[in-house]
Amino acid sequence: MSKQVEIYDSTLRDGAQAEGISFSAEDKAVIAQRLDAMGIHYIEGGWPNPTNPKDLEFFERVRDCEFRNAKIVAFGSTCRVGNPPEDDPTLATLLRAGTEVVTLFGKSWTLHVTDVLRATLDENLQIIADSCAWLKENGREVIYDAEHFFDGYKADPEYALSTLQAAQAGGAEVIALCDTNGGAMPYEIQQIIAAVQGKLTVPLGIHTHNDAGMAVANSIVALEMGAAHVQGTINGYGERCGNANLCSVIPNIELKLGKTAIGAANLTKLMELSRFVSEIANVYHDHRQPYVGESAFAHKAGVHVDAMLKQPATYEHCNAEWVGNQRRFLLSEQSGGGAVAAKLDHLIPGLDKRHPTVQKLLQKIKQLEHEGYVFEAAEASFEILARRVLGSIRNPFKLIHYRTINRKTISGSEVEAIVKIEIDGQIYHTIGEGNGPVNALDLALRQALENVYPSLKDVRLEDYKVRVLSSAEGTAAKTRVLIESSDRQRVWNTVGVSENSIEASWIALVDSLTYKLLLDGVIAIN
Amino acid sequence: MSKQVEIYDSTLRDGAQAEGISFSAEDKAVIAQRLDAMGIHYIEGGWPNPTNPKDLEFFERVRDCEFRNAKIVAFGSTCRVGNPPEDDPTLATLLRAGTEVVTLFGKSWTLHVTDVLRATLDENLQIIADSCAWLKENGREVIYDAEHFFDGYKADPEYALSTLQAAQAGGAEVIALCDTNGGAMPYEIQQIIAAVQGKLTVPLGIHTHNDAGMAVANSIVALEMGAAHVQGTINGYGERCGNANLCSVIPNIELKLGKTAIGAANLTKLMELSRFVSEIANVYHDHRQPYVGESAFAHKAGVHVDAMLKQPATYEHCNAEWVGNQRRFLLSEQSGGGAVAAKLDHLIPGLDKRHPTVQKLLQKIKQLEHEGYVFEAAEASFEILARRVLGSIRNPFKLIHYRTINRKTISGSEVEAIVKIEIDGQIYHTIGEGNGPVNALDLALRQALENVYPSLKDVRLEDYKVRVLSSAEGTAAKTRVLIESSDRQRVWNTVGVSENSIEASWIALVDSLTYKLLLDGVIAIN
Repeated sequence: MSKQVEIYDSTLRDGAQAEGISFSAEDKAVIAQRLDAMGIHYIEGGWPNPTNPKDLEFFERVRDCEFRNAKIVAFGSTCRVGNPPEDDPTLATLLRAGTEVVTLFGKSWTLHVTDVLRATLDENLQIIADSCAWLKENGREVIYDAEHFFDGYKADPEYALSTLQAAQAGGAEVIALCDTNGGAMPYEIQQIIAAVQGKLTVPLGIHTHNDAGMAVANSIVALEMGAAHVQGTINGYGERCGNANLCSVIPNIELKLGKTAIGAANLTKLMELSRFVSEIANVYHDHRQPYVGESAFAHKAGVHVDAMLKQPATYEHCNAEWVGNQRRFLLSEQSGGGAVAAKLDHLIPGLDKRHPTVQKLLQKIKQLEHEGYVFEAAEASFEILARRVLGSIRNPFKLIHYRTINRKTISGSEVEAIVKIEIDGQIYHTIGEGNGPVNALDLALRQALENVYPSLKDVRLEDYKVRVLSSAEGTAAKTRVLIESSDRQRVWNTVGVSENSIEASWIALVDSLTYKLLLDGVIAIN
Repeated sequence: MSKQVEIYDSTLRDGAQAEGISFSAEDKAVIAQRLDAMGIHYIEGGWPNPTNPKDLEFFERVRDCEFRNAKIVAFGSTCRVGNPPEDDPTLATLLRAGTEVVTLFGKSWTLHVTDVLRATLDENLQIIADSCAWLKENGREVIYDAEHFFDGYKADPEYALSTLQAAQAGGAEVIALCDTNGGAMPYEIQQIIAAVQGKLTVPLGIHTHNDAGMAVANSIVALEMGAAHVQGTINGYGERCGNANLCSVIPNIELKLGKTAIGAANLTKLMELSRFVSEIANVYHDHRQPYVGESAFAHKAGVHVDAMLKQPATYEHCNAEWVGNQRRFLLSEQSGGGAVAAKLDHLIPGLDKRHPTVQKLLQKIKQLEHEGYVFEAAEASFEILARRVLGSIRNPFKLIHYRTINRKTISGSEVEAIVKIEIDGQIYHTIGEGNGPVNALDLALRQALENVYPSLKDVRLEDYKVRVLSSAEGTAAKTRVLIESSDRQRVWNTVGVSENSIEASWIALVDSLTYKLLLDGVIAIN
């Protein structure tokens, strides 16, 4: 059987220290449920401490939840110098969290002991041992995070080792070596772990940061050398450049090291988890992220696409499905006729990449991409474009005009949109009121269209993204709008570009509703 | 003297294969100039080949440019099996590029030879040696990229080595070992490079991809073992998950390996280069990027901020200035009163973090952040907010109303904004016409304000970013607008949040113009 590695997730604590990320207690509870369902072993929920009792909220909220795989962990520091552990408010708050497991961090680096703690080196050893022992006495499983261990070891190897021995003597069950400042190189990790191994009897863990771009590599190097526990965060969120990205660490453990972390079945849900956490954190999902990024298995260069069509292993290091991702061939000038022909295959099977229709469409794509369109992220708009070139679609309506009026006074604001369109000779003139001009336009347009196309009632705008393309001209720059829509069964993406953000939104909106009618077979011409 | 490593930039070729990136010949020329000014040794300009002669444009364009440090490189494949090199159209096109250096890629992996090239193993060795030799005969410096070398070595070590020997026999000056699919682990790189060393006399280079999150680590491991040449791209742009990020590789060489790449003086321009290339590529600048990300030296957790104020080395692995970045303390609930007091220091020196004013401002920040504001990225809006709490600013005008009207017909579109404001009892009622509603509002508001505040004429909106916050409600979601402004001397950022994107833009716009008046001393109250 392959060896088991313990996965310790710190998204809710270290991840929340990332610039731009802030989780509510409710967000944290939702993420914890998902992590548990993925087979993660430890979930660090936060740092309950006397000055920030708010973090206790999360622990209260999850106390009655059932976790099938994960143990919930409270994180905190050793007691203060001079405080007996039983009288220390920090440890008392940690116990109040009521978790099965507590992770305690302590100082390994003499600089931190003298300049931050302002304690003697011996006092530091004492509070490490005493704090671990007190938590053990109170029935907690104790994980010890040796903060700045690698920097501490470089400064004073003997002292750094003695802090680990103090934690072991205090009863810590796992000792995680931390590269807190993220500056260690993989070959240093190798040398230092080799020096530590044999000096301790408890299992080692690894906790790394990405300040030198080494967080994932340093974790994997430590695990390859025998560490049995790894700490990180989903999508690598964390202070400064972030922590080790568990969405890279976990597949590397399973697929490269040949050890087991969460198992192959859970692994197939990894991309979904990555997107989910990114959604809750409300930050951009990094599409270049290893394994779980939207681009991770996206092929663009013509030579790559051609080789992949011959033999898939040629430009992929693993199977996209293993991590819940999928292979994509991108449409762009670089990808050439081959990719366009592949995309058209469901409309006209077996089309040659040199066929005039393919070439005409490729020209059109190049021109629109030059204007700022991206069809890579808007396959529904591509389909509509392709069908227009092929003559296999009719327009669902003819625009006569639309207008939006946005008025703000001291007493409030109002936003209206007026749409006048023609369908089969009949004029529809409607008005919508919304939170903003695009919302109002959406309501007005649907009001008109739903007279003739009632199935549009099912269309829901799931996501709406605005990107300013060339920032050289300030507010006169071009705007690209991407809309994700669904009818509860299917999801599709459309794009619009204009100097006017309302017009760009209109284009993407019309494509979205048009695509729904195409899916329903209402406007397709065969 | 420290050892020199050659830096080989492939942003213009591999970088352009990234999803969402497309460079014009003009973009490429501008980037090449900047790379040269940074002391980069080789700049790969593109892949001129018979089916994509467009890539020759770049080489024509730069032929008469002076490069002080860099050699321009044309990239291409070995000749086709059966073609004598002198009759091969691929090699002929490569020579037409007229560069001093050519990088030739060839197959190391038997799978690729048989399934993609569809050649025999011996034929492949022949075309590698012949192609290198032909380019040498034509006066080119030849770099050989051994595509898929690590995968090839794992499949058939002896054959993979023989392809390198063929390139060496053909006269290649450097042999770069490529992890083309990006799936190799650092310990594999170590083992395989150790096996190759001693079997070749030419210097080794390294070219890695990031599909397992190892591109930077694998590059550094190879250089630590003695490789003398490294290939990568600015910001790590490239096919799928990207290439080795030179913005991480270069500082790691200079600051961690103790070798020289571009030198300490050029290193201080690294962040500027990273942002510049991201701007030209028109993609989001990854703020979590090691060394050159905006968050790389940003401290948020209260315990980190407090320690940093005592001793800067405690939570930073290197000095931010060495790479042209800067240390920042972030404002958020987590950062607490200490960071707010530090921010207010220029207004009220020595304010205690427990002072009621600090606490009142902290409450206000928490409430606004809950609504979607981020002051981390909008320090000018923070200053205005702080001064309002302190009573040290007066409002430059009073809004009576504004209105935007956006009309689209078959014959065209028009966008108008009407603004009515009061300054010192005087009413100003103006109208502006623009490309979009925000542009029109900007013009109308300035028209009114410039009557009283003529210095606003110098304000330029440099960047305008729109972010949809909660996407759960489609177009009715909240919108956050960030505006970057300048008056040619100074740059500042402001923020606005609203369900209505026009109102969010208005808030950020008013803050921007207000901040300019604050800088000019027109509306400050001391």
